[in-house]
Amino acid sequence: MAELLRGAPVVAAITEDLQARVERLAAHGVTPGLTIVRVGEREDDISYERSICSRAAKVGVAVTVQALDASCTDADLHAVIAQANADASVHGILLFRPLLATLDEARACAALEPAKDVDCLTPQSLFGVFARQPVGYPPCTAQAIIEMLDHADVPLSGANVVVVGRSLVVGRPVSMMLQAKDATVTMCHTKTRDLAHVCSQADVLVVAAGCPGLIGADAVRPGQVVIDAGVNWDAREGRLVGDCRFDEVEPIVRAVTPVPGGLGAVTTAVLCKHVVNAAEAAAGEECAHGGR
Amino acid sequence: MAELLRGAPVVAAITEDLQARVERLAAHGVTPGLTIVRVGEREDDISYERSICSRAAKVGVAVTVQALDASCTDADLHAVIAQANADASVHGILLFRPLLATLDEARACAALEPAKDVDCLTPQSLFGVFARQPVGYPPCTAQAIIEMLDHADVPLSGANVVVVGRSLVVGRPVSMMLQAKDATVTMCHTKTRDLAHVCSQADVLVVAAGCPGLIGADAVRPGQVVIDAGVNWDAREGRLVGDCRFDEVEPIVRAVTPVPGGLGAVTTAVLCKHVVNAAEAAAGEECAHGGR
Repeated sequence: MAELLRGAPVVAAITEDLQARVERLAAHGVTPGLTIVRVGEREDDISYERSICSRAAKVGVAVTVQALDASCTDADLHAVIAQANADASVHGILLFRPLLATLDEARACAALEPAKDVDCLTPQSLFGVFARQPVGYPPCTAQAIIEMLDHADVPLSGANVVVVGRSLVVGRPVSMMLQAKDATVTMCHTKTRDLAHVCSQADVLVVAAGCPGLIGADAVRPGQVVIDAGVNWDAREGRLVGDCRFDEVEPIVRAVTPVPGGLGAVTTAVLCKHVVNAAEAAAGEECAHGGR
Repeated sequence: MAELLRGAPVVAAITEDLQARVERLAAHGVTPGLTIVRVGEREDDISYERSICSRAAKVGVAVTVQALDASCTDADLHAVIAQANADASVHGILLFRPLLATLDEARACAALEPAKDVDCLTPQSLFGVFARQPVGYPPCTAQAIIEMLDHADVPLSGANVVVVGRSLVVGRPVSMMLQAKDATVTMCHTKTRDLAHVCSQADVLVVAAGCPGLIGADAVRPGQVVIDAGVNWDAREGRLVGDCRFDEVEPIVRAVTPVPGGLGAVTTAVLCKHVVNAAEAAAGEECAHGGR
C-alpha cells in the first residue's frame, strides 16, 4: 500500500500562506488580479477555469475572464492581451493553451507582459527557468510537482529522477528545476528505448506524457515516489485518469499521487501564488514577501 | 583500440562548406566580420583568440579584436559592445568569459545584439536552445559536440546519452540539443551519486565537467562513444588534458575524442560557421544558405 500524495494538504499550506500575504497587500490597497484569456468553449478549459475561480476566491485573488469566440482573429486576441498588459489592476495573465490552429500561439505568448506572465509562456520566463535566473515564474504544473515533492520531504539532491515527457509546459521545465535541486535527471520521451526499464531505475518518477495508462507495473519498483502529472479524460470510464495505471502502480511503490486528487489542485494553488507574487512585486518591496 | 574521433576531418568539412558560402557573400560585397571582446590578458583567452584568428583567415572571416585592460569598467565594456552592435560590418560578437569578478557578466551578455550573438550568451539565444525555436545560435562547444557526433554517424535517436556537467556554456544546452535529436539524456553533475555507474550505462558519454581526469576505466564500457569536451592545462605534465583519463578510457571504448586534437578545433570552426550564418542573414535571403 503506497502513501497517497494528495493535493489537499499542499493546497491548504499554500492557501494559508497566501491569505496572510493577500491581507498585507489589502493594507496597501492592493487586490491581486488575474485575467484569464480563453478562446472558445473547450470543456477542459472551462473546467480548469472553474477550479481557478474557486481557489482564487478562497485566497483573495480577483479573477476576470476574457472569453473570445472560437472565430476570433489574432488581432482580437492581441487586443485583449494588450488591454490586460496595460491594466494596473491585473497582475497576472493566463492564456489557455493550446490555442486553436487558426491562431499564432507563439506570437500570442510573446505578447504577454513578462512581469504578468504567471505560467511561463514568454521567452523571458522560459529563459529564466533554463538559466536559473530570477526572471518570471516557472510553469504552474512544473512548480506544483516541486511543491508536492517538497511537501512530502522527498530528498532531491543526488536523487535519480526520471521525467517522462518533454513538453515545454511540464517535462522540460521541471527537468531543469529538478536539476537545479541537484537531482540527476533523465529526460524520457516517445523515442526512449525500453521506457519501463529506464523508469524502474528512478528514485523519483515524474510522468507528464499526456498518455493515459502509459506507466504500469513493469515500470516501477518498491521504494519509488511517483508523481503523475497526467490529466486525461477517459470517456469509457467517464472519469479523469492519469498517465499511470494507478491500480498496478499503487501496490508496488512507496508513494504516488492519485488522479484526480493529486497534482491538479496544487497547480491551481501555485497559479494563485504566482499572481500574489506578481502583485507584491508590482506593489513594491515594502510589502513583498521575497518568495518566488 | 578505440577509433579516435579527431577534429581535423570535421573542421575540413566545415571549412570547405564555409569557403564556398564566403565566396557567394563576396559576390554581394559582404565579408563576414567577427569582433572578439577580450578583457585582460588571460593565457587561455589569448590561445583561443589565436586559433580563432587562424581558422577565420582560412575561412575568409575578418576578425577584429577589442582588447580591454583588466582595470576596465562596466561602462568601458558596454561602450565596446555598443560599438560592435552598431557596426554593420560586424556580423558576430564573441565576448570571452568568464569576465573578471569586477564586471557584471550577466549584464554584458544581455547587452549583445541578439542577431550577432554567435556563442549563445544572450537570454534570447538561450531561450532558443531551450524551446527549440530558431532564435540565435547554440553555444559553439555544444554545437561542436553535435557536429562531431553527426560526422561520425553516431545514431542519436533513442540512444542513451549521459552528459556530465551542467554549465550554461556546454552541459545544459547540449543536453537540450541531444534531446531534440531524440536521445534519452541523463544530466549528471557534482551531486550525482555513483557517477561512474551512471556513465557506464550510456551509449554516448559527453563529458563537459571542466575537471581533469574525472572519467576513468570504471566509468566506461566497450561499445561506447565518448566525447571529451574538457580542456584543462596540466601544469605538471605541461600539456592540455581532457576530463577523461585517456590512457584508461581509450583501450575500452569504441570511439573517443582525443585532447588536444578533438573537439577544440571543431568549436573554432563552428564559431566561424555562426559568423557566416549571421552575415548571410544580414545580407538577406538572396545569398542565404539556410543552414543554422
